[in-house]
Amino acid sequence: MKKIITISREFGSAGGTIGKMVAERLGYEYYDKDLIFKTAAKANMSPDEAIKLDENLSHGFGFGQSLFNLYSSPLDEKLYEAQKNVIREFAEKGNCVIVGRNANAILAEFDATLHVFISANPNWRVKYLKADKMKDMPEDKIMAHLQKIDKARQKYCSYFTNTEFGVAKYYDVCLYSSVVGIDKCVDVICSLAK
Amino acid sequence: MKKIITISREFGSAGGTIGKMVAERLGYEYYDKDLIFKTAAKANMSPDEAIKLDENLSHGFGFGQSLFNLYSSPLDEKLYEAQKNVIREFAEKGNCVIVGRNANAILAEFDATLHVFISANPNWRVKYLKADKMKDMPEDKIMAHLQKIDKARQKYCSYFTNTEFGVAKYYDVCLYSSVVGIDKCVDVICSLAK
Repeated sequence: MKKIITISREFGSAGGTIGKMVAERLGYEYYDKDLIFKTAAKANMSPDEAIKLDENLSHGFGFGQSLFNLYSSPLDEKLYEAQKNVIREFAEKGNCVIVGRNANAILAEFDATLHVFISANPNWRVKYLKADKMKDMPEDKIMAHLQKIDKARQKYCSYFTNTEFGVAKYYDVCLYSSVVGIDKCVDVICSLAK
Repeated sequence: MKKIITISREFGSAGGTIGKMVAERLGYEYYDKDLIFKTAAKANMSPDEAIKLDENLSHGFGFGQSLFNLYSSPLDEKLYEAQKNVIREFAEKGNCVIVGRNANAILAEFDATLHVFISANPNWRVKYLKADKMKDMPEDKIMAHLQKIDKARQKYCSYFTNTEFGVAKYYDVCLYSSVVGIDKCVDVICSLAK
């Protein structure tokens, strides 16, 4: 039985939703990047630092826009280290699904892990976001946004880990959710976890 | 039901074995790169050309060593086109597993396809090859060989298609066979084919 499931994903590929469904079905805890960030900030930042980062969070981090820029100062390196520790603490507890923050690379030496990557057709991702998180944004803007985030996540991953974002050999299973379907992704992940 | 399953794979990752097992379980035809090559050569080459290519085949193609060099002359371009046509003919018949030769990219516009990529830990691949295809080669030589073939397949894929070898978004499912296990890979592929 895999005790730690990490999910890396393209923005808008339903990786978070899939992660939540997997956690629910297996009775696991679910940790996403916002929780990891907040826990890390609370434990390691002064109130001033936390406010500064929180502004970045609301403007860019949540949607990933300034994801890479965010990590260019010593403060950002400090935050990265803090997030790494939070991810390790969550993983030590076991029975969890961790979405985002390169958890696959951070937990490379942990046992009983299943490292998942979710990607999807870009047009499908636009429709998925338009239906939920990004209702008010025109589709062409969502598409431009996606492409920015894809690049930011690639850079972030290459910068902080010795893996590459979305390259199959760094994950145990990769699924293309727009073809496979969300429910079937959940089935496959749960079956591989057992 | 998916009528066409393509399997791209790292050398030594058991992709061929997995493909054969999937074909057997689903009652599908199994086509590998040697069959594709031979069918293409027979239909499109003069006897002299076929002999020349067959020499390349026995020296390098089979183990992939001169895979990229093989495709640098006009004759090689001609062979590539011929292989493309053979793959399309196999796919038209349906109910088949096609291993190798970038079939995922060649059949991009076909319906009812499932595009699979198999990779594995390099040490595991060395042991897998040592136990079967490459009994007489020392392990360090097998490892060096693997790395060459990985590069050749990447180049070959980038040169002839608009996809990248082993990048998750170009496949519907990618599996790391050394962690997932061969039998479980077969299970997942068959379950996604249904």
